[in-house]
Amino acid sequence: MSTVSEPLLLTPGPLTTSMTVKKAMLRDWGSRDPDFEALTRFVLAELLKIAKAGPDYVAVSIQGSGTYAVEAMIGTLVRRDGRMLVLANGAYGQRMLGIARGLGLETLEYAVPETEVHDPSELRRRLAADPSIRSVGIIHCETTSGILNPVEALADVVAEAGRDLYLDSMSAFGALPVDAARLRFTGLAASANKCLQGVPGVAFVLSRQDHLAASKDRSPSLVLDLEAQYRQLQADGQWRFTPPTHIVAALAEALRELEAEGGPNARLARYRQNSRVLIEGMRSLGFETLLADAVQSPIIASFAEPKAGWFSFPAFYEALKQGGFAIYAGKMKVGGTFRVGSIGAVEPAAMQAFVACVTATVAGMKARR
Amino acid sequence: MSTVSEPLLLTPGPLTTSMTVKKAMLRDWGSRDPDFEALTRFVLAELLKIAKAGPDYVAVSIQGSGTYAVEAMIGTLVRRDGRMLVLANGAYGQRMLGIARGLGLETLEYAVPETEVHDPSELRRRLAADPSIRSVGIIHCETTSGILNPVEALADVVAEAGRDLYLDSMSAFGALPVDAARLRFTGLAASANKCLQGVPGVAFVLSRQDHLAASKDRSPSLVLDLEAQYRQLQADGQWRFTPPTHIVAALAEALRELEAEGGPNARLARYRQNSRVLIEGMRSLGFETLLADAVQSPIIASFAEPKAGWFSFPAFYEALKQGGFAIYAGKMKVGGTFRVGSIGAVEPAAMQAFVACVTATVAGMKARR
Repeated sequence: MSTVSEPLLLTPGPLTTSMTVKKAMLRDWGSRDPDFEALTRFVLAELLKIAKAGPDYVAVSIQGSGTYAVEAMIGTLVRRDGRMLVLANGAYGQRMLGIARGLGLETLEYAVPETEVHDPSELRRRLAADPSIRSVGIIHCETTSGILNPVEALADVVAEAGRDLYLDSMSAFGALPVDAARLRFTGLAASANKCLQGVPGVAFVLSRQDHLAASKDRSPSLVLDLEAQYRQLQADGQWRFTPPTHIVAALAEALRELEAEGGPNARLARYRQNSRVLIEGMRSLGFETLLADAVQSPIIASFAEPKAGWFSFPAFYEALKQGGFAIYAGKMKVGGTFRVGSIGAVEPAAMQAFVACVTATVAGMKARR
Repeated sequence: MSTVSEPLLLTPGPLTTSMTVKKAMLRDWGSRDPDFEALTRFVLAELLKIAKAGPDYVAVSIQGSGTYAVEAMIGTLVRRDGRMLVLANGAYGQRMLGIARGLGLETLEYAVPETEVHDPSELRRRLAADPSIRSVGIIHCETTSGILNPVEALADVVAEAGRDLYLDSMSAFGALPVDAARLRFTGLAASANKCLQGVPGVAFVLSRQDHLAASKDRSPSLVLDLEAQYRQLQADGQWRFTPPTHIVAALAEALRELEAEGGPNARLARYRQNSRVLIEGMRSLGFETLLADAVQSPIIASFAEPKAGWFSFPAFYEALKQGGFAIYAGKMKVGGTFRVGSIGAVEPAAMQAFVACVTATVAGMKARR
């Protein structure tokens, strides 16, 4: 196999983007110029459209990775006169808990194993039993395993109980359905470089406007203060601090391409097909998924490493990279797993080529043993 | 004049970068791939070299704009068992104060007017008079006015008094001299998109290694915890949260181009020439600088708006933009100023063309009156 200088990224993001998205970065924008203000307005309006959000919601962009948006959301929006319950079944639930605790919030955890989803009835019971819980944090698609949490059912329980819902929709937003009227979240965090197929460096929070307005001066951080960021964007269309102009331009192009593809539903259909080709192909080679099909997201899948002596992950990774594919290390507590993503500017034919590459790689590794 | 789709940015950054820097963004990197780890190592090593920093210093990258690095530096490094004195003569000094106060630090301000620099003797007196001051914050080049603060003389006073120095070297680093052995700072914050001529979205802090190591668990923020970020980079070469891969690649290319230009001294010589052409040209047209030449940086200059009836800043800005140049609004308290930058991938010939454009613009505005 020849060395491939730029492998296809079968990861949960940063992922492979289209060349047109990357070429949108070949211009330097004045960050205080009206042209860039218009670009920002376009991006924020598109993000609200994707979430089918009405005028009671606003979008606020924030410099940094997705986790910056999660911290900005919790630091700015979450009420301090009550506890925050976080539903955790992976590293991103744990991270949300860590952020909240670091900010001095009183937290509670509803933990289930990484291969299981939370039970809406149990959530209802916990919320009824503890009126001090004012906020609930949920991970939409837990990238640790690739599990798709039942956000609609859980969101219904939170809304019925009159609590505030904070959704980390990082690896879901742009493909998996997000309907603000249905989910009734107070805040939702996501980033440019997942299903929106932009490049990393900018993230955002969708928030209820009234709740955001009531959050003035709550953030202990200057840079992560969403309310102040929103106020400035409203006042003069500008970011408070230097925006990642090239990345915002790439996101604008990525949003146009999402629309051209047919919107989130069409994108989800492609990801589902990618995921089907991947999982069926890997199973045909004897690889096993960690999750039951009922809870497996079409975003990323965790596979168990073969326990046979011929397998080593570093050698497997390097051989696949030489073949043109970058996969992802595992992150589950059980260990001995690796992950393959189905998202990005990747077609089912590429997933078939990946399965062929795995087939050849496994044969080579077994032969060399 | 015809419409120019992409004006030259005569701003304090984001600025005009070379096409090769922008083209470095035409690749998608796997953020956990060894190739990207090597890219990060290269960038961090180059940043230390620019500061002539020995093995007692480390470089830590952080996602976001320069202000993110300032907040990360203060939140992680500044000792809480004493006060922080900030030397302010502009908006960025005020911003450093605001960040420190927001984080709950006890702060003191040594303020001088925006057109003046701080007196080292007065700083010595204040530090001697108040042993509770453990940390001192200084802005290297105050972009509000374009004033160049006497950092070497001030740093000497801080070192002699045995206090910790925190330097915001945002619009200076990469061109104006920074010598870690001379300045003996505890922390220095800067960003990719100023004199380094990279694109915005990544910033960094240079820190004394022993001080950083002693800062474990001090940061209230998860994402802005420099010590944790450094520990992860040391452990496996990876960023804790998704890095802005394309922007890091652009910064690596920008650092190679800085070296090819002859390093910070050669770059400073070009900026000085740009600034000279700019200021002499503007003065020949009757525009006055706000600062005395002795304290004027070669980075950005503030000019007084003509008080005559023919002048309006929005019309002036728009006409210059149509002519191919984006300038910057003023930020000084006195009001009625605008700014023009001398940095970026801009040659003295372009500054001459700018002066010619201002000449034509002024003539046109006067004629239309």
